[in-house]
Amino acid sequence: MRIVVLVGGIGGARFLMGARRLPAEVTAIVNTADDLTLHGLRVCPDLDSVMYTLGGGADAERGWGRAEETWTVSTELAAYGGEAPWFSLGDKDIATHLMRTRMLDAGYGLSAVTEALCDRWKPGVRMLPMSDDRVETHVVVSDEDGQRAVHFQEWWVRHRGDIDTHRFIFTGAAQAKPGPGVVEAILAADAVVVAPSNPVVSIAPILAVPRIKEALTTTSAPVVGVSPIIGGAPVRGMADRCLAVLDTPVTAEAVGAMFGSRSESGGILDGWLVDETDAGASVDGVTVGAAPLWMTDPEATEAMVRRALELVGVDA
Amino acid sequence: MRIVVLVGGIGGARFLMGARRLPAEVTAIVNTADDLTLHGLRVCPDLDSVMYTLGGGADAERGWGRAEETWTVSTELAAYGGEAPWFSLGDKDIATHLMRTRMLDAGYGLSAVTEALCDRWKPGVRMLPMSDDRVETHVVVSDEDGQRAVHFQEWWVRHRGDIDTHRFIFTGAAQAKPGPGVVEAILAADAVVVAPSNPVVSIAPILAVPRIKEALTTTSAPVVGVSPIIGGAPVRGMADRCLAVLDTPVTAEAVGAMFGSRSESGGILDGWLVDETDAGASVDGVTVGAAPLWMTDPEATEAMVRRALELVGVDA
Repeated sequence: MRIVVLVGGIGGARFLMGARRLPAEVTAIVNTADDLTLHGLRVCPDLDSVMYTLGGGADAERGWGRAEETWTVSTELAAYGGEAPWFSLGDKDIATHLMRTRMLDAGYGLSAVTEALCDRWKPGVRMLPMSDDRVETHVVVSDEDGQRAVHFQEWWVRHRGDIDTHRFIFTGAAQAKPGPGVVEAILAADAVVVAPSNPVVSIAPILAVPRIKEALTTTSAPVVGVSPIIGGAPVRGMADRCLAVLDTPVTAEAVGAMFGSRSESGGILDGWLVDETDAGASVDGVTVGAAPLWMTDPEATEAMVRRALELVGVDA
Repeated sequence: MRIVVLVGGIGGARFLMGARRLPAEVTAIVNTADDLTLHGLRVCPDLDSVMYTLGGGADAERGWGRAEETWTVSTELAAYGGEAPWFSLGDKDIATHLMRTRMLDAGYGLSAVTEALCDRWKPGVRMLPMSDDRVETHVVVSDEDGQRAVHFQEWWVRHRGDIDTHRFIFTGAAQAKPGPGVVEAILAADAVVVAPSNPVVSIAPILAVPRIKEALTTTSAPVVGVSPIIGGAPVRGMADRCLAVLDTPVTAEAVGAMFGSRSESGGILDGWLVDETDAGASVDGVTVGAAPLWMTDPEATEAMVRRALELVGVDA
């Protein structure tokens, strides 16, 4: 069986820890719109979160980056007056970015680079960047300096979303081609699952690549989403702040409606799995089910994934 | 008073520790032919040795790199199968290379980058790269794989010079322009001093830049060299192996003759200071003097520099 999962960073990584327990070939299509260049290094936070987590190298407590990380290089960069002190790169992490940047400079695509890095980490799922083209989430904000667009990471890490925010723009998405294998994986899948990642800044940028959206609309595989909102609050991260920018209520139902019905509203969902707390939620044209959605461990997460698949008639 | 010193790495750095004690404006013209690109980072071993040593950040015991260095990034690069395991970059050192590489990528010349890095280190001398152009010492070697040219650092660090060696080639030197300020500093100097750096791979590449050689030949300032050979052995490093490649005897006299007399043989020297052990050495057309040449501490080194200057009639 072939399962395709659309994911962002940490939340997506945890979801994949459950999904890869299934007797299935799992392909993760990973958001790359958070990527940024820092100190000349190409940094792919979501790809790395997934790779480190599935490869057993992530810092589980901090929730991002490498376990037993050190910060010597960043301390030294600061001593030189190097910029972006709001985004510190760990030493171990920097090695990943050096390998990646060098391969990109040599002309390899991000997907080829990711595959090479995964030779070491062996994540147990096939990891495909959503696109090898540059797509970047920019955020239009305003403060005493006036209105301007900042990189998503600046909004997220530096401002913690706590700044007057007007909208998100997925720069480059409309022109971006899906990464090699992305469309093929979606079309050949037995099921497509939307992980409980941030719907606004992790899943939406993937959907903003036209040929990915088209593949999701046309694939014969059912598409089922898992709600990132439980009882009116995000499971993790700042989906609430992101949804507020879109004037979308922070509810499982509203996020389901945002993704929309594949059959009725030009959306992407056949099924939508919400937490038991949110049982009773309904989304027009979408089969809604309820199950415990706390990803307490890979076993509980595996059960979640199975419930999501069952909801759209797929028996793993 | 203005003193210009031609230097390589560690030996040159120690020499400058003495020279900067003089009541003079000291300009160091630093060899850049050892520079290399590793993991996409531009590494300038001689510039960094001088900068770290004079800035108080060098590891005195190891003789190169930063004090209290750590090796996390290099260990991780090795885990990815990153190449050049014979040249490990320390974490602190990597921050320097990241800053440099990024500025070079942004279009700044190496001299401007060096000046910016020195804002932090305040070496107390003006540090000028010999050239902003790429000059690289390649070494023609042969072994069971046949004859080939390797980068100087591979010959030096990987093979420790212990491989059948035919010649050194300063690739790019003939076309290279002197770095900004280099020729001006030589022409405006009250004295030019050739540090006891490796004559074959530290000083010779500087002289291989035609307009630098020309400035040394035409400046009204006297030019005095300090022997890197004491009693038939190099003070430090592998000058003996390098001289062997040129079939030049490992003696203070032979190295003086290699640099040659400015007035008689198209060389660069007016004076040549040898160690007391080597008193009696003579070089045609060059005033030879003897003094203790062990750079045991900055005070002893200062005395050396003063003796060198006196030899060519300059009173510091």
